[in-house]
Amino acid sequence: MNVTRAGIINVTGYVGIELARLLHQHPQVELVSVTGRSAAGQKLGKVFPHLAGIDLTIEAELGEVDIAFSAMPHKDSAAVVVPLLERGIRVLDMSADFRLKDVAEYQRRYGVPHPAPHLLKQAVFGLPELHRSEIVGTRLVAVPGCYPTGAILALAPVVKAGLIEPDIIVDSKSGVSGAGRTPTQGTHYTEVNEDISAYGLGGHRHLPEITQELGLLRRRQSPSVTFVPHLTPMTRGILTTCYATPATDKLTAGDKGQEELVRLYERFYKDHPFVRIMDSPPHTKHTWGSNMCLIHPTVAPDTGKLVVVSAIDNLVKGAAGQAVQCMNLMLGLPEVTGLQAPAVFP
Amino acid sequence: MNVTRAGIINVTGYVGIELARLLHQHPQVELVSVTGRSAAGQKLGKVFPHLAGIDLTIEAELGEVDIAFSAMPHKDSAAVVVPLLERGIRVLDMSADFRLKDVAEYQRRYGVPHPAPHLLKQAVFGLPELHRSEIVGTRLVAVPGCYPTGAILALAPVVKAGLIEPDIIVDSKSGVSGAGRTPTQGTHYTEVNEDISAYGLGGHRHLPEITQELGLLRRRQSPSVTFVPHLTPMTRGILTTCYATPATDKLTAGDKGQEELVRLYERFYKDHPFVRIMDSPPHTKHTWGSNMCLIHPTVAPDTGKLVVVSAIDNLVKGAAGQAVQCMNLMLGLPEVTGLQAPAVFP
Amino acid sequence: MNVTRAGIINVTGYVGIELARLLHQHPQVELVSVTGRSAAGQKLGKVFPHLAGIDLTIEAELGEVDIAFSAMPHKDSAAVVVPLLERGIRVLDMSADFRLKDVAEYQRRYGVPHPAPHLLKQAVFGLPELHRSEIVGTRLVAVPGCYPTGAILALAPVVKAGLIEPDIIVDSKSGVSGAGRTPTQGTHYTEVNEDISAYGLGGHRHLPEITQELGLLRRRQSPSVTFVPHLTPMTRGILTTCYATPATDKLTAGDKGQEELVRLYERFYKDHPFVRIMDSPPHTKHTWGSNMCLIHPTVAPDTGKLVVVSAIDNLVKGAAGQAVQCMNLMLGLPEVTGLQAPAVFP
Amino acid sequence: MNVTRAGIINVTGYVGIELARLLHQHPQVELVSVTGRSAAGQKLGKVFPHLAGIDLTIEAELGEVDIAFSAMPHKDSAAVVVPLLERGIRVLDMSADFRLKDVAEYQRRYGVPHPAPHLLKQAVFGLPELHRSEIVGTRLVAVPGCYPTGAILALAPVVKAGLIEPDIIVDSKSGVSGAGRTPTQGTHYTEVNEDISAYGLGGHRHLPEITQELGLLRRRQSPSVTFVPHLTPMTRGILTTCYATPATDKLTAGDKGQEELVRLYERFYKDHPFVRIMDSPPHTKHTWGSNMCLIHPTVAPDTGKLVVVSAIDNLVKGAAGQAVQCMNLMLGLPEVTGLQAPAVFP
Repeated sequence: MNVTRAGIINVTGYVGIELARLLHQHPQVELVSVTGRSAAGQKLGKVFPHLAGIDLTIEAELGEVDIAFSAMPHKDSAAVVVPLLERGIRVLDMSADFRLKDVAEYQRRYGVPHPAPHLLKQAVFGLPELHRSEIVGTRLVAVPGCYPTGAILALAPVVKAGLIEPDIIVDSKSGVSGAGRTPTQGTHYTEVNEDISAYGLGGHRHLPEITQELGLLRRRQSPSVTFVPHLTPMTRGILTTCYATPATDKLTAGDKGQEELVRLYERFYKDHPFVRIMDSPPHTKHTWGSNMCLIHPTVAPDTGKLVVVSAIDNLVKGAAGQAVQCMNLMLGLPEVTGLQAPAVFP
Repeated sequence: MNVTRAGIINVTGYVGIELARLLHQHPQVELVSVTGRSAAGQKLGKVFPHLAGIDLTIEAELGEVDIAFSAMPHKDSAAVVVPLLERGIRVLDMSADFRLKDVAEYQRRYGVPHPAPHLLKQAVFGLPELHRSEIVGTRLVAVPGCYPTGAILALAPVVKAGLIEPDIIVDSKSGVSGAGRTPTQGTHYTEVNEDISAYGLGGHRHLPEITQELGLLRRRQSPSVTFVPHLTPMTRGILTTCYATPATDKLTAGDKGQEELVRLYERFYKDHPFVRIMDSPPHTKHTWGSNMCLIHPTVAPDTGKLVVVSAIDNLVKGAAGQAVQCMNLMLGLPEVTGLQAPAVFP
Repeated sequence: MNVTRAGIINVTGYVGIELARLLHQHPQVELVSVTGRSAAGQKLGKVFPHLAGIDLTIEAELGEVDIAFSAMPHKDSAAVVVPLLERGIRVLDMSADFRLKDVAEYQRRYGVPHPAPHLLKQAVFGLPELHRSEIVGTRLVAVPGCYPTGAILALAPVVKAGLIEPDIIVDSKSGVSGAGRTPTQGTHYTEVNEDISAYGLGGHRHLPEITQELGLLRRRQSPSVTFVPHLTPMTRGILTTCYATPATDKLTAGDKGQEELVRLYERFYKDHPFVRIMDSPPHTKHTWGSNMCLIHPTVAPDTGKLVVVSAIDNLVKGAAGQAVQCMNLMLGLPEVTGLQAPAVFP
Repeated sequence: MNVTRAGIINVTGYVGIELARLLHQHPQVELVSVTGRSAAGQKLGKVFPHLAGIDLTIEAELGEVDIAFSAMPHKDSAAVVVPLLERGIRVLDMSADFRLKDVAEYQRRYGVPHPAPHLLKQAVFGLPELHRSEIVGTRLVAVPGCYPTGAILALAPVVKAGLIEPDIIVDSKSGVSGAGRTPTQGTHYTEVNEDISAYGLGGHRHLPEITQELGLLRRRQSPSVTFVPHLTPMTRGILTTCYATPATDKLTAGDKGQEELVRLYERFYKDHPFVRIMDSPPHTKHTWGSNMCLIHPTVAPDTGKLVVVSAIDNLVKGAAGQAVQCMNLMLGLPEVTGLQAPAVFP
């Protein structure tokens, strides 16, 4: 059996260590190199005791690999991705650098000119449920943001089917690990525990990813998405509650409409092993550590609004797990390889 | 100084003990009697160690009082409230029994015929920010539900001013104490911690309170509210995120519109000491144990939607504190009496 | 490859579902039958959404299996275990029924006569680090309690080496899942979160397990253990802090003594893959979902007391993982089979 | 009525804002000045929204006051305290600078020579339950550390009565606010939540305070205290579990001994309104926001060891509340003035 050698650039953040956890368990990939400037020279298991089973030293530069995951911040990520691609290494980029097709939008949101616009054409938005065949054939995957994953999967079936008006509300509740590993006042335990708050009301960087992907599903009527994220007192998980108005005459009322809606979702995702349609509201805790996305589509009885709720683990389906799922496709492996562990509950 | 004698019926739930905590600190009211069937005969401070400073025994029947708070469940509450009123005792009812003016709606939501429809005319919805003068003159206050308090206060200024279309989304995130003191699978620590979920998608009982009160503010155009509550891993607090579409030409765009919006809210609440308009998104934790409602109104930069976020402590401004505020008005006391302690933070 | 068919009796508690999670991932065992009276007839994945990948219906009676795990409560467990053994099925009992060798102690702690004293001789205390060879040869393993696992592993090296006086303090801090899945006032989210308390001060049932096992390590001087458990606001994990007085002249002072102590522990556990000796205090979170026990032995600089801290996941190394580890030994498999997933962190 | 003007130096930490919360509610003291270098010039309520009811601007220098609380770190605190005392202002120092009578011990623990040894004689250790009359007469109170408060109050009665051997174990569990307001990796939400760990095993700075104060109670036999603090996933609260061996023949066995023990504690604290002796293990949550210390003394049934558990709110009885209690004594006010609000529960 031919084992693929994988590497992680910037392993020392939460996305990096989650990639390490998943790749270590992958039966057909070997994690052979991890980098991290601040911790270079230290054993991975010394810095992160839960990874003591992985016998690797954190390096300053990536070693010899066949495929690389970059967990660098935006802009810096492009800088490391470009030479890797030139050396023929396949890349999964966890940053925002290759997610948006529109360089002007990138510049507006990230405040810098796009660092490598020539790669945007070959980069594939790494959401296998929408772009599986493109991912299979590419050498550069832009792994989506955590919020967009939950929102797009919740909305794709109804957007594609033209069942809703373009005006959409996305109210997301994220665990604190989404804010990264660097301590800040806003993620200090004493200030976050027993607290919930909205943020990003001035415009969140993940919004254009949502708009771009939903727009591709229904080109003739661009969606208008109002997106408000909330910091929730939990470590992992994103719950996304989406609200939309059904297009005239497109959704049957009552229980029958509800059944049709569920069937639409089940059909849409029938070949996608990491999406499950639920007949009750999903709990983020049921996805803890797993790559599942749980979706509950419903029609509000009092107003007829479409309400769709999705739950993911932001570090797995919202980041590292999704990346491994894409990697499996790139390598011609079954999509679920190494990703079948149930969630850890409770 | 004439001290008013107050009593609490069913002190053994979370609303009951929060009333006890607040009334014990009130300088012009003396808590003289508390009842609770399951714990009758026991010292209050024995069952609830944090209340050991209150020297009262939990009784089966209410003693001699001038004013009574009923923390009984709906239907049972009306049964105890009616005889109290007949004896001339003023009543603040914490249950849903006298909140809705429409008895058919009550029956639809609570599954029983209204237990005392003849009292609905005199009952006042106990939200002082909207009904202060009526509360001053009544003998029966129906203290609002926790969710409606957060939602109505967030929306009242723009609804009254006719600034938004009637289609409104209310996405609420509540701490677990809102589910009461009786242990259930859904409030078991191990299942709630590190989890968030939506519930009540089939229609929540608090919705008609919101619709009724917003409807009174703008009679010619009844609002249509889609309301989804979420169970959040925290003990206290409700964060309410409201979404609406500005009515045509009613809201100036950009920073100027934002300023006008803030000024509108400040004007609306300028004589209301328990509402504060914030220039950044509020945190529920900043209201812990206090009667404040913090509101942040804003316009989404990408879509122009109105987004208003409010934060309250569900057991204080969402229940017991609001009741004491109403009691102050009924007794001719300054509205803030006994309610000025800052939130306990962090 | 010959696959062993495994079954779980009473899958509906936390130990039961954790066994299901681990057995489902085991490469050489197939989980073929799960029982649970209250949920009989329902799909496992319907009751526990995180287990939806396991296609089993919860049954009233156990199907055909080669090996069975009983997650029944004490006394009831013996009643189901006896007939299984008679049918030649190997059994891992998660209850207390076969842990104590002294039937009088059993009766004193559990308030009932021992239900099957004739089996005590063949039953092996399922702590592989102390009883590996006996486990290999037995048909009945009594899987230890969660507290005893953390305490015994922390103390075994120094007790066996005779390094400490028999007077030992064991101060344990457990997550709430140790209290089981049945909701109670004491495990209600609102009462547990932001709270820590001691319990079992009148004598905890797990104490005699600790005393029995430490006594076997140092027969001439029976240990006297004072054990106080604490309920900690977290879902999983037990941190055990043990205090003892070094026997005269047995422990060198200062840094050299510390090094000798660490070397003693490393030697003791060198062939035991699930114990790791740490050079800094362990965190329960570094064991989340994994079978590791992390131990940090040290000498208090101010008083010369021995202080040993251990961390485990109470549902894994403290219950289900330990049982699978024992099963591996019983089946002649490598001890680590199916148990090598790193902890899920953060 | 003559109102005392109070000031807080370094209001921007958790002890500082808790002092502000309590002083704002004090009926006979007016908080007139607060300082804080990093936030100088800003409104207090802008930086700390829960204190918006206090109309003060954070200053660089303390204004005109009669009494001052210094919440500066050790060493820096002495530097600001000395000139205040010289100006005749009474001072309550929240730092460690004047707690230890032994300057060598101070230097060993804090790594700097004592900054003002000439003041040590007049400084009084601010634990009113042990030093009430000295506090009444002093101008400089050294408010104890949070851990020492919980430990000393738990042990004082038995140490003073000579009921225990000098060898004492103190196992403390603290909420995260004890670590202060500055964000660090160790207090980052994602790393602390669902985790418990020991720290300070190499010797914690609070240990000599415990030893000093217990030593004063029983001069002929200096106690030897092994102290291990634990970081617990909660915001506020310290639970302290103390273990000691009864001195020969000093404690009656069985229920009668238990009763005698409780009576000893009740007698010891009968004139102390902020200590309550409990007949069941205390919960930190029952002290949330209050100045109470709850103590449960008991004898372990299996080993006869004395086990005493105490619970406090580390920011109130462990810091700011204790300081206000001392201030009341210094000002000749009733000890409980401004400190009678019940805990906020749940």
